[in-house]
Amino acid sequence: MARVYNFYAGPATLPVEALQEAQKNLVDYEGSGLSLIETSHRSKEYDAVHTATIDLIKELLGVPSGYSVLLLGGGASMQFGMVPMNLMPQGGSCDMTLTGSWAKKALADAKKLGTVHLVYDGGDSAFTTLPDPASVQSSANSSYLHITSNETIEGVQWKRFPQTEAPLVADMSSDILSRPLSVDQFGIIYAGAQKNLGPSGVTIVIIRDDLLERAPDSLPAYLNYRTHAKSGSLYNTPPVFSIYMVKLVLEWLQRQGGLGAMAERNRKKAALLYDAIETSGSFYRCPVDPRYRSDMNVVFRLPSEDLEKRFVTEAGATGMIGLKGHRSVGGIRASIYNAMPEEGVSKLVSFMSSFAQAHA
Amino acid sequence: MARVYNFYAGPATLPVEALQEAQKNLVDYEGSGLSLIETSHRSKEYDAVHTATIDLIKELLGVPSGYSVLLLGGGASMQFGMVPMNLMPQGGSCDMTLTGSWAKKALADAKKLGTVHLVYDGGDSAFTTLPDPASVQSSANSSYLHITSNETIEGVQWKRFPQTEAPLVADMSSDILSRPLSVDQFGIIYAGAQKNLGPSGVTIVIIRDDLLERAPDSLPAYLNYRTHAKSGSLYNTPPVFSIYMVKLVLEWLQRQGGLGAMAERNRKKAALLYDAIETSGSFYRCPVDPRYRSDMNVVFRLPSEDLEKRFVTEAGATGMIGLKGHRSVGGIRASIYNAMPEEGVSKLVSFMSSFAQAHA
Repeated sequence: MARVYNFYAGPATLPVEALQEAQKNLVDYEGSGLSLIETSHRSKEYDAVHTATIDLIKELLGVPSGYSVLLLGGGASMQFGMVPMNLMPQGGSCDMTLTGSWAKKALADAKKLGTVHLVYDGGDSAFTTLPDPASVQSSANSSYLHITSNETIEGVQWKRFPQTEAPLVADMSSDILSRPLSVDQFGIIYAGAQKNLGPSGVTIVIIRDDLLERAPDSLPAYLNYRTHAKSGSLYNTPPVFSIYMVKLVLEWLQRQGGLGAMAERNRKKAALLYDAIETSGSFYRCPVDPRYRSDMNVVFRLPSEDLEKRFVTEAGATGMIGLKGHRSVGGIRASIYNAMPEEGVSKLVSFMSSFAQAHA
Repeated sequence: MARVYNFYAGPATLPVEALQEAQKNLVDYEGSGLSLIETSHRSKEYDAVHTATIDLIKELLGVPSGYSVLLLGGGASMQFGMVPMNLMPQGGSCDMTLTGSWAKKALADAKKLGTVHLVYDGGDSAFTTLPDPASVQSSANSSYLHITSNETIEGVQWKRFPQTEAPLVADMSSDILSRPLSVDQFGIIYAGAQKNLGPSGVTIVIIRDDLLERAPDSLPAYLNYRTHAKSGSLYNTPPVFSIYMVKLVLEWLQRQGGLGAMAERNRKKAALLYDAIETSGSFYRCPVDPRYRSDMNVVFRLPSEDLEKRFVTEAGATGMIGLKGHRSVGGIRASIYNAMPEEGVSKLVSFMSSFAQAHA
């Protein structure tokens, strides 16, 4: 079958070149007589992949010295627990911003482990906006301040980040590597791979080295960031295939011109969709504050749920899938991560126009 | 290049048919127009894979009702922490058997979280033997008794399991699905996939449902077994590719005749190697107690370290790789998991014979 345009929120579309390269090598890795996923994680073949992946992350994001890049399992959801376990002493406190469904999950875990000060609660606005970054300050004695850089379900995205006294910790699962970033503003950045980085199964953690010292010795080895920093993320067998795919995706990203070029392309793709919504004569409505509309997940509503259902079905029939909004909020969601080509977005925009004409 | 015989201890050799099937589908999954690793983990395509994988594990192992099968990230090393966190109350105790390098790691984590009674310490025998299962009893008020069913580094393997008052917890990473098993003897069985099950990146946990109730509500969501049992291991995005590969490997295992046939084949392969060692006129020596020699990892020594180095190099030159023993113990190790064909073992046995003749 011809390749579809895949608007899923994650796992999400990947560069087809990266998939083809992985396919070519899946049974016999670069003429070695076995697959990379069969080779020891201590072999020179895997070591080259592991090291290159970490180096590419550092290079593309401009990770300064004094930070470690870790490759872990368990997903970003596991980081909701690992961050407070490592950074917040028993009886300690942290600050959090409640900006949507993912922040809510991070908040639930942190609450189990200490006192949480909510420095922003988007519940009153149904999570359609974000605070002015300049207004976000950490509390006295806070171990860290946590944000979610992009909310995939509500479609809000921080455009600039707060400058906080306490280390800033960001869940960047859904927009990492979509735009340039000043890593030195952050104490920890973590991200599940399955949106912009690769397939599911690996989580990137970028941590400022002084924070590694905070982890209590009482933590089980795997749950202590220090374990992984000390061993170069080879304390135990890493998720080899996922890391290999991340490497291929990062190489593709580099060929696209890096984060600057990618950010421009992402803004353009998002603008095409938001413009189509705004100029639809209110057939399409985006509930999100225009200042914080996500370049990754464009959410919008149609005049009725019935039309929304029809929209998803008819789009699917023309080779555009994954457009149904999250079940918790309904509506339509077009996830347009790095690997979504402009042609996919153009096709969606044309479809939106015809659909609106037919049903207005 | 022709396919090599891969004796790595893990990640390890996989059935080539499973690799070929994955390769065929990697870019376009069964004609769906996208890769399985790009599709939502809530899609019908992935759901079918997820469900089939869990069902195959249940079927092949004969998992009785009243047990849940979970698919987690983080590796067996993460289970070293999760087991005590979930099963042992604060200030509680557990029993452990110290049988080798992996048991030692499990022990280190458990010690951080409670009192550990060592019911067996193999240190005196340099971990070359195991206790009589009948002699292994749990202590009063112990939350569980932990064993490591097979030690990949020392090459010892439990042939029968203790019957304990406290729930029996087993790390079966390196021999799960290599032989039939009475799951109802166990409270928890856990296993990283990268030996007999598939590639790295996913860990199977089989847990008796009453034990799910022990997990304290204070645990972060991902670290609580209940979270995954309640959501059918779809609380967050699972490691899709690893699970898909496990499914393909399990289907292959089923085509081989299931666990009975596989155990027979595994015993035969191991016997070929141990016989070659025993009949070598002490050129080769296996340090392990014959009663507990592993069918998965056959460890042996040569007359000198120099000859061992040469053995590894010359075997490599004839297409047999991964034979170097673990750096902590030295010597030779041939890992012969389910997917190692008999021809690979025969070839190694012939090589051993010629090598001994040339260097005796």
